[in-house]
Amino acid sequence: MAERARIGILGASGYTGAELVRLLLRHPGAEIALLAAGKQAGKGMDEVFPQFAGFDLPRLESVESVGGEGLDVVFAALPHGHAHQLARRLKPGVRLIDLSADFRLPPEVYAEAYGIPHGAPELQAGAAYGLTEWNRDAVAGAGIVANPGCYPTASLLPLIPLLRAGLVDPSDIVIDAKSGVSGAGRGESQANLYAEVTEGIHAYGVGRHRHMPELARALDAAAGGPVGFSFTPHLMPMSRGMLATIYVRGKAGDLHNALAETYAAEPFLRILPPGATPQTRHVRGANLCLVGVVPDRREGRAIIVSAIDNLVKGASGQAVQNMNLMLGLPEVTGLEGAGLFP
Amino acid sequence: MAERARIGILGASGYTGAELVRLLLRHPGAEIALLAAGKQAGKGMDEVFPQFAGFDLPRLESVESVGGEGLDVVFAALPHGHAHQLARRLKPGVRLIDLSADFRLPPEVYAEAYGIPHGAPELQAGAAYGLTEWNRDAVAGAGIVANPGCYPTASLLPLIPLLRAGLVDPSDIVIDAKSGVSGAGRGESQANLYAEVTEGIHAYGVGRHRHMPELARALDAAAGGPVGFSFTPHLMPMSRGMLATIYVRGKAGDLHNALAETYAAEPFLRILPPGATPQTRHVRGANLCLVGVVPDRREGRAIIVSAIDNLVKGASGQAVQNMNLMLGLPEVTGLEGAGLFP
Amino acid sequence: MAERARIGILGASGYTGAELVRLLLRHPGAEIALLAAGKQAGKGMDEVFPQFAGFDLPRLESVESVGGEGLDVVFAALPHGHAHQLARRLKPGVRLIDLSADFRLPPEVYAEAYGIPHGAPELQAGAAYGLTEWNRDAVAGAGIVANPGCYPTASLLPLIPLLRAGLVDPSDIVIDAKSGVSGAGRGESQANLYAEVTEGIHAYGVGRHRHMPELARALDAAAGGPVGFSFTPHLMPMSRGMLATIYVRGKAGDLHNALAETYAAEPFLRILPPGATPQTRHVRGANLCLVGVVPDRREGRAIIVSAIDNLVKGASGQAVQNMNLMLGLPEVTGLEGAGLFP
Amino acid sequence: MAERARIGILGASGYTGAELVRLLLRHPGAEIALLAAGKQAGKGMDEVFPQFAGFDLPRLESVESVGGEGLDVVFAALPHGHAHQLARRLKPGVRLIDLSADFRLPPEVYAEAYGIPHGAPELQAGAAYGLTEWNRDAVAGAGIVANPGCYPTASLLPLIPLLRAGLVDPSDIVIDAKSGVSGAGRGESQANLYAEVTEGIHAYGVGRHRHMPELARALDAAAGGPVGFSFTPHLMPMSRGMLATIYVRGKAGDLHNALAETYAAEPFLRILPPGATPQTRHVRGANLCLVGVVPDRREGRAIIVSAIDNLVKGASGQAVQNMNLMLGLPEVTGLEGAGLFP
Repeated sequence: MAERARIGILGASGYTGAELVRLLLRHPGAEIALLAAGKQAGKGMDEVFPQFAGFDLPRLESVESVGGEGLDVVFAALPHGHAHQLARRLKPGVRLIDLSADFRLPPEVYAEAYGIPHGAPELQAGAAYGLTEWNRDAVAGAGIVANPGCYPTASLLPLIPLLRAGLVDPSDIVIDAKSGVSGAGRGESQANLYAEVTEGIHAYGVGRHRHMPELARALDAAAGGPVGFSFTPHLMPMSRGMLATIYVRGKAGDLHNALAETYAAEPFLRILPPGATPQTRHVRGANLCLVGVVPDRREGRAIIVSAIDNLVKGASGQAVQNMNLMLGLPEVTGLEGAGLFP
Repeated sequence: MAERARIGILGASGYTGAELVRLLLRHPGAEIALLAAGKQAGKGMDEVFPQFAGFDLPRLESVESVGGEGLDVVFAALPHGHAHQLARRLKPGVRLIDLSADFRLPPEVYAEAYGIPHGAPELQAGAAYGLTEWNRDAVAGAGIVANPGCYPTASLLPLIPLLRAGLVDPSDIVIDAKSGVSGAGRGESQANLYAEVTEGIHAYGVGRHRHMPELARALDAAAGGPVGFSFTPHLMPMSRGMLATIYVRGKAGDLHNALAETYAAEPFLRILPPGATPQTRHVRGANLCLVGVVPDRREGRAIIVSAIDNLVKGASGQAVQNMNLMLGLPEVTGLEGAGLFP
Repeated sequence: MAERARIGILGASGYTGAELVRLLLRHPGAEIALLAAGKQAGKGMDEVFPQFAGFDLPRLESVESVGGEGLDVVFAALPHGHAHQLARRLKPGVRLIDLSADFRLPPEVYAEAYGIPHGAPELQAGAAYGLTEWNRDAVAGAGIVANPGCYPTASLLPLIPLLRAGLVDPSDIVIDAKSGVSGAGRGESQANLYAEVTEGIHAYGVGRHRHMPELARALDAAAGGPVGFSFTPHLMPMSRGMLATIYVRGKAGDLHNALAETYAAEPFLRILPPGATPQTRHVRGANLCLVGVVPDRREGRAIIVSAIDNLVKGASGQAVQNMNLMLGLPEVTGLEGAGLFP
Repeated sequence: MAERARIGILGASGYTGAELVRLLLRHPGAEIALLAAGKQAGKGMDEVFPQFAGFDLPRLESVESVGGEGLDVVFAALPHGHAHQLARRLKPGVRLIDLSADFRLPPEVYAEAYGIPHGAPELQAGAAYGLTEWNRDAVAGAGIVANPGCYPTASLLPLIPLLRAGLVDPSDIVIDAKSGVSGAGRGESQANLYAEVTEGIHAYGVGRHRHMPELARALDAAAGGPVGFSFTPHLMPMSRGMLATIYVRGKAGDLHNALAETYAAEPFLRILPPGATPQTRHVRGANLCLVGVVPDRREGRAIIVSAIDNLVKGASGQAVQNMNLMLGLPEVTGLEGAGLFP
């Protein structure tokens, strides 16, 4: 690798933006050439995230001013609705990895889920869905990659191979998911104050969470037809981490075998021994998805539990994994290492 | 009420024991006449729980020495297996409220679930199951009350009326439950160290948790036949609180109506407005069960969420509620007041 | 007590306001007759604090519209600067307990510390400083009580008697204080988001915290001359609680004796045995101040540690204690009971 | 670097042992050749720390069987008292980095502080105190390195240069320190259960903590005479992190200048701009010490705040830094990268 790819990160003042910076700082094939933010434009990165004091990083530019000159890859870690405009103004040849929902859905589905029109429908068809393990060819060649949401990532990685193989009944799946608070972003908010979140749990968006269309599309595609599933997200007192507890009809032994076989060579998926289930704290900071399969007490049913760090495999880590593919680098570059526990 | 009932608490050095002390200290009809513990016997209560410094409480006696002389009601907050012996040696007329599983199950079911024989099978038939709202007559007259487990309490309160009324399909229920750590008790344990629990979540006992036989019995009884359900408990970083997310087949509107009607006059159950779901932090320290009902995205299905404080309505609070019934006191005595939030 | 006093709470949508509601709901001599808020005016109390669902409480009025008609006591739990105007418009005879800094300082000191002029200087002289244990006569008769800040409360309760008795050297005191996040209020804030606060600690306002003039005034008064002290507040990941670690020159044995004697009959102060130090978690929800005294490793020096719940003895609990005095009720009314632990 | 050094880690089932594994897994000059533990001997590393599943690591041997054959460097992360025996049985040429207190103190001081005799007094003189920045030459050539404690590290890094330069008054220093729970180790313990630690703070070992002799020795050496200081450690609800708030007599401007100059070229020390103070969460997982200096409100005094991750710069990170020196590698090898926040 003669030269490092020149990278821009838009939305560097948010949590997924900062996580991209953390990961790329130790990436041997990438150079952080541009950082941009909205209200924080003009500041040093160490002013908005003091953990970066002492690292040589560009100051924060204004998101609106970024056109991509001199960059190879741009990550957009912006609120929904901003990446459409960005994609339209990027110079030809600059590749975009978008961590928002902007390029995950067909325009009409997007408009319904997010209540705003899709701002770049002409570019949608060329966008690759960046669930890396299941879309490598498309990602490698794409100009725009739609990085998946954290809830879909935690749910799809175990379910896609099982639905494809016909090992679980597509008509009846329950996904009960628990997320850390960083998924809600760094915006000022009463609901996410420490005193409102600590020492408690609650469900939210019950029956109607925004990630559902993304989930539904990918599940349907894997099953080759409509999948019937329930999905409930919960917010709990942890910064990072996501656990999905998935109830399916199918034989636990078969499911375990299929997952173990499918993912045997994958560096970022780890199927636990039969009967074991994962903890989110063991993937803290790591680009991993741990999956366990246990027979349910009811005959013919199984419980699958998957764990990711919502900011890594559920967002910025998977984005870097996609970048590696796009740049022709080994997929694990800059993403190795164990989680931070305790 | 001319005189206060004289109360003994066995297992006062554990969390449910301490919670009984907290609740009874402000109870106008009860006097804490005896406290007992195992290894901590001989100490002052303020030595094992400094929050009680300054309160006039008896020193901790040895559990083994307690026969019930001079007591009206004995609470047993002991590990499984101890209440059987206690029940046999209590003086006639002393009533027992047991917070363990010892009197919740028929002897043969108990033996299988807990791996030890039932130590007082001759007393089992006379024990009342203390899910107060559904067993008032039996509790009021019983010599032994088996106080329900926290997981069953959170699950049964919403499900019993719906199964009785035939409003949910008994063949397919999923209960995904999340518990605070105090439910695991105060024993020395690596798994429950702060650094092992904070900032993460995991499922445990998947497919085979000990509370399942208790749950199954009560659900079957409500449905008048076998109920098919999955149940997964999770441990999360909070001291107190329990949330059960329950997936059922049934019409959300009907379910909400039935719950609202059934529990309209109950002081300790609160059915939230349609579409709203509860947070555990809002019942912290309170003897309440909050229940919300939301239509699932799938036609003909609903999601029910219930929240309790595992140490209060899930243990010691419900035990005091049962005591009130047994003593002929108003059921809410000593149990009023809002939760502690933030 | 034939009738309950009629109470108004302004700022009921904040944490100290909610804590007043929690405490007064179980107070036999008080009736919550009015609740008011700013932006949340018009809502039900259970909409802004769901732990109050099911309790019979008035809807939130607008703070600006409150004149005190029909009320005996008004609590103001409002941001700094609002109580001055309120005090001016309250009907004669309505007594005010202000939880902000508005009436704690002489007008010129207030103006310097808060950067705004004192809005009711003509009323300042009549305001009593509500550190209850040290100002009972004035509080009992006052029309306006300035409830102390949490940092001053935790520091002054141990230091005042020692300075008065000349047992500590007034020229050299270090107060290192640690606070839970609820002290920062419920306003939207990036700095107080869960993910920004959990699993870490930091000092803030080092060398220049706003509570310093309040502290200095009271310490000087106790010593009868200027007291030299350093004070550093820290924010830590807990909702409630405050610990002050105080380094003084003096003999630990003498200090302990003096504190034990001074506070022997006080219901809300508890001096631990010599050598023992308190934990904040043991006063959670309780109107208590625990104090421990330990000899320093350096000859002639001692370390004093005091613990309070910042929302109770550090704010709303002490305010109710003052209300009891003002109404001629036993001081402990509505404030008994042990802390919530775990 | 032609070959990787072969490393053994004793005590790999504890937190500092696991942190050594995490750091060395990404170290290009080291190979983990041996892992050993006490009770956990025989298990795979992923059984005791699941975050290491998928990494190629040796199984846990028994600590007692380790003699150092084939190893270049051995890290001992064992309870106090074990490294003495280990040092005696290590083969000649195998170098030892001990994370316990066993080689930090002269035998007679050790015996008094730890209540057991020093088990290898003949080796003590040859042991280097591994506060890297202040003892590079000795560390580089030593056969035994005594890695400093976390409290001394956080305190000494800011204080040594100031005492050496005579910029602070050595007769009066107060160190108020706050630590995460991982410092207490992974042993079963009631006091460190989640429910006992969360949402509260307390001081411990007040006036008599075991780290004091280590602190005193190093401070005295820096000052060239006895230093008068008070020291209070506190335990707070976080896994990792340590903050020391240090009160000194001296001019803040001079102190800041001296620290900034002394540490200008140090990769692991960062002096914040004047008036700014650090947060522990910004060094989570990083081998950094952040230091801030603020003028006290009292003339002629200053407040210094330093932050480290107790498991990294306070233990395993500094140990790897020492290893790099001993092996002649660049000191930063394997230790670069930003902290994990949020």
